[in-house]
Amino acid sequence: MQQIWLSLLCGFCLRLVIFCRAEEGLEFPNFDGKDRVLDISERNYKKALKRYDLLCLFYHEPLPANKGLQKRFQMTELVLELTAQVLENKDIGFGMVDSQKDAKVAKKLGLEEVGSLYVFKDDRVIEFDGELSADTLVEFLLDVLEDPVEMLNNAMELQAFERMEEDIRLIGYFKGEDSSKHLSLKMNEVNFYEPFMEEPAILPGRPLSEMDIVEFVNQHRRATLRKLRAENMFETWEDDMDGIHIVAFAEEEDPDGYEFLEILKDVARDNTNNPELSIVWIDPDDFPLLTTYWEKTFKLDLFRPQIGVVNVTDADSVWLDMSNDEDLPTPEELEDWIEDVLSGRVNTEDDDESADDLEDPDGYVPADSYESHDPDEEDDNDD
Amino acid sequence: MQQIWLSLLCGFCLRLVIFCRAEEGLEFPNFDGKDRVLDISERNYKKALKRYDLLCLFYHEPLPANKGLQKRFQMTELVLELTAQVLENKDIGFGMVDSQKDAKVAKKLGLEEVGSLYVFKDDRVIEFDGELSADTLVEFLLDVLEDPVEMLNNAMELQAFERMEEDIRLIGYFKGEDSSKHLSLKMNEVNFYEPFMEEPAILPGRPLSEMDIVEFVNQHRRATLRKLRAENMFETWEDDMDGIHIVAFAEEEDPDGYEFLEILKDVARDNTNNPELSIVWIDPDDFPLLTTYWEKTFKLDLFRPQIGVVNVTDADSVWLDMSNDEDLPTPEELEDWIEDVLSGRVNTEDDDESADDLEDPDGYVPADSYESHDPDEEDDNDD
Repeated sequence: MQQIWLSLLCGFCLRLVIFCRAEEGLEFPNFDGKDRVLDISERNYKKALKRYDLLCLFYHEPLPANKGLQKRFQMTELVLELTAQVLENKDIGFGMVDSQKDAKVAKKLGLEEVGSLYVFKDDRVIEFDGELSADTLVEFLLDVLEDPVEMLNNAMELQAFERMEEDIRLIGYFKGEDSSKHLSLKMNEVNFYEPFMEEPAILPGRPLSEMDIVEFVNQHRRATLRKLRAENMFETWEDDMDGIHIVAFAEEEDPDGYEFLEILKDVARDNTNNPELSIVWIDPDDFPLLTTYWEKTFKLDLFRPQIGVVNVTDADSVWLDMSNDEDLPTPEELEDWIEDVLSGRVNTEDDDESADDLEDPDGYVPADSYESHDPDEEDDNDD
Repeated sequence: MQQIWLSLLCGFCLRLVIFCRAEEGLEFPNFDGKDRVLDISERNYKKALKRYDLLCLFYHEPLPANKGLQKRFQMTELVLELTAQVLENKDIGFGMVDSQKDAKVAKKLGLEEVGSLYVFKDDRVIEFDGELSADTLVEFLLDVLEDPVEMLNNAMELQAFERMEEDIRLIGYFKGEDSSKHLSLKMNEVNFYEPFMEEPAILPGRPLSEMDIVEFVNQHRRATLRKLRAENMFETWEDDMDGIHIVAFAEEEDPDGYEFLEILKDVARDNTNNPELSIVWIDPDDFPLLTTYWEKTFKLDLFRPQIGVVNVTDADSVWLDMSNDEDLPTPEELEDWIEDVLSGRVNTEDDDESADDLEDPDGYVPADSYESHDPDEEDDNDD
């Protein structure tokens, strides 16, 4: 690692520059230049696994010959160094595993996806496939350190649980007489809440083994409506449905966005048993640096809610026309459109044909209640 | 601006390194090395003001002689360059104003706080005194571009409005017959919602001028409970109460944190008319890079809710003992403790005295229901 670089980048990488301020209490850390990330090899990986409560291994391609890519590579190292520094007192080890040089170690440890970070905790491995920035990574690791099971002791804590609708949640009732009243859980019963669903699924069988529970969660992991989050954004995006995603943009803090999101939730609840449907909800507020990129790539105005189909191999897309602000689609209209997407009637490949020219075996004509607009067509007009 | 630097830093500053991925649609922008930030002087500032919908001027100290500070300075420029690139299509101008070299321009434009960014929109100036990172800045500027007034047209949009409890909100009823029913607003009436308050204040007088409204908001700007947010964190922190802040840490997504926050809201609602009380609520999830710094500085475990008093000149602090997880203080106990803080009975200066030694004119002995723990005392024991 080049020390010049590190000191040079130190203030910046932590995203902040402060000129002298009189107050104390909000000091963003600066990188101190100390190497903390291990170069993992066959000689030291076992020792590293033993030594730390948590071991984070970044699985990477060999150092590229290209200068530009080398810089990117060093920046990744720097993100890890910073994360290691910030979490120094938490007993977390960090290391790099080269997919070529350390192929044997990688195989032994079960590392598969180059560019992912693998977290070893006790006898488990957790893959991080999110935004590789110091803040996202620190937040993720602090979450991993926390006990994943929370005791719900009172009505207020139950309310907190009910509010976490964006996450997959499991709830079980194992002892005590009072706590289950509000949830009507039976003793030893475990319930699974899909994100945004009001009614849980009951895990079959009692008592359940750890493996039963893990298997059930893995089978039901892909939600009908799932929120894109920095900590697993690439994992979500890679989990496409036949090469496409139905993507909805909605700013939850905006009245229109909130309303549209409620409509999406309605649609998701009505279609929760359709394995072919999974809508990716993106709140632009969570990704300020991607907002204008998305506006440009998809030719959208992200100050308004939007829903469309995106082909993940080329980012080609087609969007539902909702240009009238006063008139968001009803859940029924949205379901009709989604049906057309799933049946292939609305797709990203018909770019050069108008809606009327579509060949459709059923003689289908798009409903008057909505129109799809294709960014490429607009593009042709603009240029 | 040094071009080498820019290209060198390009990938990193945008917080992301991606090795080849097959999917498209989530590409974080790379800095392209093009200069977009203007060097503002007497010659060009008027033209710049005219040319853009929004002009952002960073008011800074002269380039320091110290090499380390010079690097920080260049990193700030880089944050601005990146922000300018990301927002390239939004008609926003960016410039730097040197507090020494451009003192005349600064005076004409009313720039006062070195290290702040001033945004000129129409005939108004908005000061940004938050975290100077590209994502916080982009998010802030996208918000400024949006129309600040939203029309509430239906029950769902009203619900969205009600959920924005963290913000100061103004609501007015000006025409139409239906929209006010749920809010019992009278024609031309404007209501002010302090953050976390359920009942609004009615602005006195009707009809109200813009100046009436602005004056009322400025007078009521400092809320009894206010959330620390990246976009104005320094502004909030600088607005201390006689050199101290009552600071509460609570993770809203955690059941304990949620419960504690609800207690805080209760206390704030009961004390909304006390001008001496303003609690700064920090959700550690919003500031992952500061979490371990706070834990170290304040000697706290931030996996649990905490409340204490922080002296902003030296970050000295004293914290309410809430080590029993099952037993958060009641709103009444919290109010007693806050009363002791406001009266000076609990303060950060009695570090070396035990609670029993406190000189108190009223012969006050801390209630059994709570104890304050002082990080410095702990420190003495640890070392």
